[in-house]
Amino acid sequence: MPRRAPRLPPLLAEFDDDERDAVLAANRAFYRAFNERDDAAMDLIWAPTGAVVCLHPGQPALYDRAEIMASWRAIMKHPEAPRVRCTEEWVLGRPGLALVTCREILPNGQLMASNLYVRMTDGWHMASHHSGPVPPVATERPTPAGTAVGARDRRKLH
Amino acid sequence: MPRRAPRLPPLLAEFDDDERDAVLAANRAFYRAFNERDDAAMDLIWAPTGAVVCLHPGQPALYDRAEIMASWRAIMKHPEAPRVRCTEEWVLGRPGLALVTCREILPNGQLMASNLYVRMTDGWHMASHHSGPVPPVATERPTPAGTAVGARDRRKLH
Repeated sequence: MPRRAPRLPPLLAEFDDDERDAVLAANRAFYRAFNERDDAAMDLIWAPTGAVVCLHPGQPALYDRAEIMASWRAIMKHPEAPRVRCTEEWVLGRPGLALVTCREILPNGQLMASNLYVRMTDGWHMASHHSGPVPPVATERPTPAGTAVGARDRRKLH
Repeated sequence: MPRRAPRLPPLLAEFDDDERDAVLAANRAFYRAFNERDDAAMDLIWAPTGAVVCLHPGQPALYDRAEIMASWRAIMKHPEAPRVRCTEEWVLGRPGLALVTCREILPNGQLMASNLYVRMTDGWHMASHHSGPVPPVATERPTPAGTAVGARDRRKLH
């Protein structure tokens, strides 16, 4: 069964394919930094100056950049921190500001995130992250020949 | 005890006080439409064309405008639909696109919302709504003399 294609909305005026690709690249870099437990990369992804906000699931809002970075370091250094697979990326942008929504697939649940990126002189940086739980959907991903992890995972989800 | 002031971040270049006020007015109109169960006003608030997404707490993402409007009508017509008080508005915007985060205070809990607004020819319209539960903070609001509705409501919360 083919994996469901991401739903990408029509582009808004003055926000072209290249911009959208750049925002999606920033979003992938965010999840890569998380999965690689890379504090330095995570720090580079967040806007170095200006307003930022982070809303971890069920947690108080963080508006202070130093607190936000500390929260990510704490999550990433936890021995049971999950790996997150990001799917269903969806972008709504205008020049200089763009929202990415995406599904975060964890081993024990799924979240939807709203990630806001702001374009600065050196590219797109995260200015806001908000995630919360959603009902899981069945997902497939390539697995080694001879295994059927996807099918097993699907049964576990429901 | 004084009520905590909203935290408004510094303005980004080219997004001035007037723009911020206009976005905040749109955000207030959204919560007013909800509290007044005003289907028509809710419909006017959402962007009439273009990409939209709505993430109700714990629900699947909705990307279809008709489905989003149906979801709001269903919530608003429910006899136990709560009234929502919006506080702690925080805006991050650039010309044409702006994110408002705010606390949604319900009788039985509190949420934080990330509301994205897009500017169209006739003003700012909601393009994305994402809300999820957060730990409640104590809040005060003026109550009629001789009543203690706030205190009673607070006891019911826990």
